[in-house]
Amino acid sequence: MSDWRKQDLEAGGALARRAFLALEKETADPPGVTRKGYGKGEKFAFDLMIGEAQALGVEHRYDAGGNLFLTYPGEDRSRVIQIGSHIDTVPHGGNYDGAAGVIAGVAAMAVFHAAGKKPPFDLCVVITRAEESCWFPYSYIGSRMALGILDPDLLDSLTRSDTGRTLADHMASDGFDPDGVKRGESLIDKAKVVAHIEPHIEQAPVLIDADVPIGVVTGIRGSFRYRTGKCEGAYSHSGAMPRKYRQDAMAATAELIVRMDALWEEMLAADRDVTITFGEVATNAEQHGFSKVAGETHICLDVRSQDQSALDHVQAQYLAIAEEIGKRRNVKFDFGEISGSTPALMSENLIGLMKSAAEEADIPYKVMASGAGHDAAIFALQGVPTVMIFIRNQNGSHNPFEAMEMEDFDKAVEILANMLARPAEDWL
Amino acid sequence: MSDWRKQDLEAGGALARRAFLALEKETADPPGVTRKGYGKGEKFAFDLMIGEAQALGVEHRYDAGGNLFLTYPGEDRSRVIQIGSHIDTVPHGGNYDGAAGVIAGVAAMAVFHAAGKKPPFDLCVVITRAEESCWFPYSYIGSRMALGILDPDLLDSLTRSDTGRTLADHMASDGFDPDGVKRGESLIDKAKVVAHIEPHIEQAPVLIDADVPIGVVTGIRGSFRYRTGKCEGAYSHSGAMPRKYRQDAMAATAELIVRMDALWEEMLAADRDVTITFGEVATNAEQHGFSKVAGETHICLDVRSQDQSALDHVQAQYLAIAEEIGKRRNVKFDFGEISGSTPALMSENLIGLMKSAAEEADIPYKVMASGAGHDAAIFALQGVPTVMIFIRNQNGSHNPFEAMEMEDFDKAVEILANMLARPAEDWL
Repeated sequence: MSDWRKQDLEAGGALARRAFLALEKETADPPGVTRKGYGKGEKFAFDLMIGEAQALGVEHRYDAGGNLFLTYPGEDRSRVIQIGSHIDTVPHGGNYDGAAGVIAGVAAMAVFHAAGKKPPFDLCVVITRAEESCWFPYSYIGSRMALGILDPDLLDSLTRSDTGRTLADHMASDGFDPDGVKRGESLIDKAKVVAHIEPHIEQAPVLIDADVPIGVVTGIRGSFRYRTGKCEGAYSHSGAMPRKYRQDAMAATAELIVRMDALWEEMLAADRDVTITFGEVATNAEQHGFSKVAGETHICLDVRSQDQSALDHVQAQYLAIAEEIGKRRNVKFDFGEISGSTPALMSENLIGLMKSAAEEADIPYKVMASGAGHDAAIFALQGVPTVMIFIRNQNGSHNPFEAMEMEDFDKAVEILANMLARPAEDWL
Repeated sequence: MSDWRKQDLEAGGALARRAFLALEKETADPPGVTRKGYGKGEKFAFDLMIGEAQALGVEHRYDAGGNLFLTYPGEDRSRVIQIGSHIDTVPHGGNYDGAAGVIAGVAAMAVFHAAGKKPPFDLCVVITRAEESCWFPYSYIGSRMALGILDPDLLDSLTRSDTGRTLADHMASDGFDPDGVKRGESLIDKAKVVAHIEPHIEQAPVLIDADVPIGVVTGIRGSFRYRTGKCEGAYSHSGAMPRKYRQDAMAATAELIVRMDALWEEMLAADRDVTITFGEVATNAEQHGFSKVAGETHICLDVRSQDQSALDHVQAQYLAIAEEIGKRRNVKFDFGEISGSTPALMSENLIGLMKSAAEEADIPYKVMASGAGHDAAIFALQGVPTVMIFIRNQNGSHNPFEAMEMEDFDKAVEILANMLARPAEDWL
């Protein structure tokens, strides 16, 4: 269907290589790079993207909160296909998490520009602000603002971890309009968005292990978390206290972890999508001792799934197993507040378009869930048809050792270009 | 056999009440009491005991390290029955741990003194220094010195936790002779000691639960500890990293704990004496996170038994289970240095004497192991016939809430007096 010349695709690749290099150099913070939300590095990256887009004749606009919209005109200008991601990073992070999605979008524009072609609708690269919640402790600030749905109270309550200044303050001093954000101002008219596509590096070694460059994402896992759980037993002498009188918080906690691990294994065997992780567990360092039965533990549980019913099942089991163990071992579990996010399913139609775009170019792909959360989840949950494309990447993300191969990135751009060349009727 | 008048036993009870009260008042450090090894509170307690002993016509001597020997003359002065314990406490500890054993010995002297009787051999109350290893981080310093077997290097290497000054320095500035300790000088001629008896409060609720005032101790549990164990896996994204690629140090650690707990249950069912405790367990607070698979844990194991073969069995199982889990879960356990102590069996003959002394007075008792370590273990392991008597006590020890009833203490003194009234041939 599409019929790119070698030089068309190479125009995208050249732009991408130039952009990654500039980012790596100008936002370096050894080891790795640092681009804080509403910080110098993020601003450099936005300016860099504006420069690359202007060379393609693309107009840019900021919304009230500072999200950037780069629009390449399509055949039918009444609708829009969005490609978006963020461009900030964690401290000393890698160069690809976020940026790869943004650059892939602009590189796809470059392919169309080199070919002198137009996509069926406007192509808009949406670059969101402050996605990494290490800066402002809240998820998807930028994409929520883009859609006009960020809780207005957060503007004055969220403070940046390094400066202590509020989100509103950072926004205003960068020349944006926190009051507009509070009013829910948005450049997006959801009725006109036929698709939102987020390219992103994969953050686990699933594609590495499968030896496949591309992942077509079926959904973004939602989650629930009990971050401040504890188990309360009673401290006693390790040598003198017989087993039957013990109220051993650590033994009870270990049993809880092992039983949840068994539940996970069982659910995977039944082909249910879920992850179960106890990332923080500890006896109380202020009171524990090598010769004391542990009287208290801290327990932090994180559970993720594409499937809300799987999340609900794990949560119910967690409470039931804890209660049973608590009674038998004479300890008390108290898991505190629950938090989390809703699973977001990707558009079946867009998944189909993406698969056929890959097949057209003979690029192998794997169909998979996204374990990590992404801006795309916010668009999907707001009813925008959404899909993600994952690019193979070594060493995970949020660290200086991210290692995406440019050849794999080029394949993602080719798939995007093939998709964007599909006629209007395929998108509607 | 013995035939104490009411006033004889009351003389012991009056001395004890006076002594406990003076200690509680003069070494108060709310909440509880503090008597540091080679500190003001310990010195007050030693002086108090000397005063009480002098009123009974009893001579006192210090050994090179400052252990105190109070000798009440017996019929045959060529041999000695020792009653001993320590008199220091942990910070903000209770008034009875240690002191109860010392005071019971001097109270038994008071019973003989009031009755105008003599035991078959000299009765020597041995008050040892610095038993609580929170002051100098080493076990049984005083009783090792008393026997002339404290490693000489420790005098200059051990420092007190609050002052940072060496053991030798503290000893010398209290007027004792660290060089004599280094030379192994001792006031004890083991060949002449027919028995060493240590009375002590029970530190678990075994007697409380059994509703029995006295425990006759069959042995002092030895131990092994891996205090600096760790499990090394790899950090990864909790949502993105599939189960089969995880190197989850916390899941592996939890499985290890649960399997050791099952081993314990199994050994108890086979009537083997053992305790297994994981008192300190933690993911690494510098690197863990609620959305990260844990890459590292700290693991501290304490195992105790009267039976060396049980300790050996548990140790072997620990290593084998860890290796199996490590291979399967792709993590590496490293338990670091092992430390511990040898189990010490009590003298069968002395156990028999103590039981019949209790039966004589119609005092119910329970035959049991000592889970905690005691100075008596050092004497037993040096070949001195040794026994311990436990006194019922609520709320454990090493805390301000120790709650021994004086009526129970009186029963222990009566049993001691009954034992000490037995003729020479019963002891040899």
